[in-house]
Amino acid sequence: MKIVSGGVCAAKGFQAAGIHCGIRANHSKRDLALIVSSVPASAAAVYTTNLVKGAPLTVTKRHISDGVAQAVICNSGNANTCNANGIEIAEEMSALTAQALGIRAQDVVVASTGVIGQPLNIAPIAAGIAPLKAALSDDGSADACEAIMTTDVKKKEIAVEFTVGGKTCHLGGIAKGSGMIHPNMATMLVFLTTDAAIAPAMLTKALQGDIRKTFNMISVDGDTSTNDMVAILANGLAGNDEITAEGEDFSAFMQALNTVNVYLCRGIAADGEGATKLLECAVSGAKDEAAAKTVAKSVVCSNLTKAAMFGEDANWGRVLCAIGYSGADVDVDKVGVSFRSAAGSVEVCRDGAGVPFSEKVAAQVLHESEIDILVTLGDGDGAATAWGCDLSYEYVRINGDYRT
Amino acid sequence: MKIVSGGVCAAKGFQAAGIHCGIRANHSKRDLALIVSSVPASAAAVYTTNLVKGAPLTVTKRHISDGVAQAVICNSGNANTCNANGIEIAEEMSALTAQALGIRAQDVVVASTGVIGQPLNIAPIAAGIAPLKAALSDDGSADACEAIMTTDVKKKEIAVEFTVGGKTCHLGGIAKGSGMIHPNMATMLVFLTTDAAIAPAMLTKALQGDIRKTFNMISVDGDTSTNDMVAILANGLAGNDEITAEGEDFSAFMQALNTVNVYLCRGIAADGEGATKLLECAVSGAKDEAAAKTVAKSVVCSNLTKAAMFGEDANWGRVLCAIGYSGADVDVDKVGVSFRSAAGSVEVCRDGAGVPFSEKVAAQVLHESEIDILVTLGDGDGAATAWGCDLSYEYVRINGDYRT
Repeated sequence: MKIVSGGVCAAKGFQAAGIHCGIRANHSKRDLALIVSSVPASAAAVYTTNLVKGAPLTVTKRHISDGVAQAVICNSGNANTCNANGIEIAEEMSALTAQALGIRAQDVVVASTGVIGQPLNIAPIAAGIAPLKAALSDDGSADACEAIMTTDVKKKEIAVEFTVGGKTCHLGGIAKGSGMIHPNMATMLVFLTTDAAIAPAMLTKALQGDIRKTFNMISVDGDTSTNDMVAILANGLAGNDEITAEGEDFSAFMQALNTVNVYLCRGIAADGEGATKLLECAVSGAKDEAAAKTVAKSVVCSNLTKAAMFGEDANWGRVLCAIGYSGADVDVDKVGVSFRSAAGSVEVCRDGAGVPFSEKVAAQVLHESEIDILVTLGDGDGAATAWGCDLSYEYVRINGDYRT
Repeated sequence: MKIVSGGVCAAKGFQAAGIHCGIRANHSKRDLALIVSSVPASAAAVYTTNLVKGAPLTVTKRHISDGVAQAVICNSGNANTCNANGIEIAEEMSALTAQALGIRAQDVVVASTGVIGQPLNIAPIAAGIAPLKAALSDDGSADACEAIMTTDVKKKEIAVEFTVGGKTCHLGGIAKGSGMIHPNMATMLVFLTTDAAIAPAMLTKALQGDIRKTFNMISVDGDTSTNDMVAILANGLAGNDEITAEGEDFSAFMQALNTVNVYLCRGIAADGEGATKLLECAVSGAKDEAAAKTVAKSVVCSNLTKAAMFGEDANWGRVLCAIGYSGADVDVDKVGVSFRSAAGSVEVCRDGAGVPFSEKVAAQVLHESEIDILVTLGDGDGAATAWGCDLSYEYVRINGDYRT
């Protein structure tokens, strides 16, 4: 397996585009994205568990209930959530897209992201579909990626090349963060494409299995979005024998999927609103995997730990505190904690109590932009990793006047 | 019932003091507090559910297992938590206090608050006990209150006068916030005193009953402290017939306790780290009280809602979002939201969708320092109130370099 360029266009038969259609006032910011497969594709998606759900999710769920999709249309700048006419608008977005592309409306995945509770005007989208279609190209992934961004600062895009049954396959994705990130059974917006041939049921299985270890293990601010969705389209153009069961081919596919998703997870966490540092909490020695996940998530979600990391302060008591209130069954007298980064590592806690450490070394370790918080629980074989970011002044500034 | 002055010294037979003994480098900040009853008192306490527990909690639990206490000793500047010799130090603090006062060590409630994981030096405490005892007075509540403060900006102190069986009683308290506040079965540090006569079992019942609606309903940052404790001493000097069962007298006592605790809760939330606004979320129309509590807590804990309130932005979609991911069984299509303050009120959401409102009026409402977020669920009779605060730049600054 190797990393390749092209994002969602790396897989054969996929084109993408992103333009400014006018949902956003800022003319330099693209706000409408399109991803199209030249042939109908197997499709699967997972969605937020928030009871308040964006209208596009309801429509997408209905559209891909037959396991088939051919295009993804997504706008930023407005979430089309908590609006009386939300479903109608999402259906209209799908219909306009289908009409322009000459495909079926029920083969369109529709998504929206942005402010909640403000009616979404269909006019700029209706006017934008034709130029959007005209802009479709094999190099369009970056533009599509930009068009789904809200407060994101960096583009999150990747693709890999791998082999299934002797055939070269590709799997790529784009993702949008960067606030209201605390996924539960799904996450933010992530669109994945692959030319591997895989049956819809296996595609769903692969996606649902992988997100438990990837997108469900990230948090920027503890707020689970209303519009989270991860959707994947597999058009089979790589020519491999369709994956219809578990086995070597499915494993190869899962590995590619996991590589892409971990990359996007780290990208989303690192580009969390206002973030200056990516935090990775790796827990080992837990009673079981569930306990490890609970502890890892609790640490990356702790505002106090996040603020300490922003301040580059090795205040490990806050890590212990977050472990203690996580709800996981932990013997606190066996807990060990180290901080690690490109600059080295420093052990700060052993057997639940502090150990002497050099504040100078700790400061060097924490000065890096990617910090690993290593937690050992000494209680079993359970392990898990969660990703988050620090809490900065900028997070507050961004969210103090998001609407205005 | 009426509000009176005197804090923890309002009840007959209680004296208090707070001095600087040298745990903190800053000589102008008191760091050691003492509250003493002239006679042994009924005692009850509730503690944090964090698995990582401060050593003083373990010692206090043991000391008041017989339902009796006579003094409270508490230092700030160091939590005496995650230290190998923590229990020993907490026992020594108790013994030194008991010796100076001529009481039993097992009648001392001991507490600590501050940095986790740094050994607590007993020397300044040992040297401080004599001057602390010498400073005891009927006006000492404010000094004791100051001595337990960490990042708190405002003193949180109150007392009420009420009648039990024809006798005038008093109940007062002091509280310490202001970060790592997300109580669960207990909270921060709160010391309450009363001269009402009440049996230990009923005192425990009263305290455990009340905190479910008071201290367990506040959050500053979602981090449940390791050193949370609410302790109450009742010395019986008011001369009422001892309260030994439910009934009129117990109800009068509960009402006094609730008045004091709600006041302290609001004070702790308003003085949350970096807070510029007190948020009160009142939920009504829930299926049951548990659902109402879950929703109210979720709203005041949402970083995005908190940041929007800091920015005085009527971004009600974030309130809806927090209701949706709370875990409570809610029909999102029936949700209503209004913001209210001293400047007026503004309805922003009805039946789960936005309603037109004046941004000018909303800005006036949200410009106040106390904001009510009123949520109606239209689904039953369950109601609950939770308190929190906004999320500001200052929170990040305070917590970016708390240790240094």
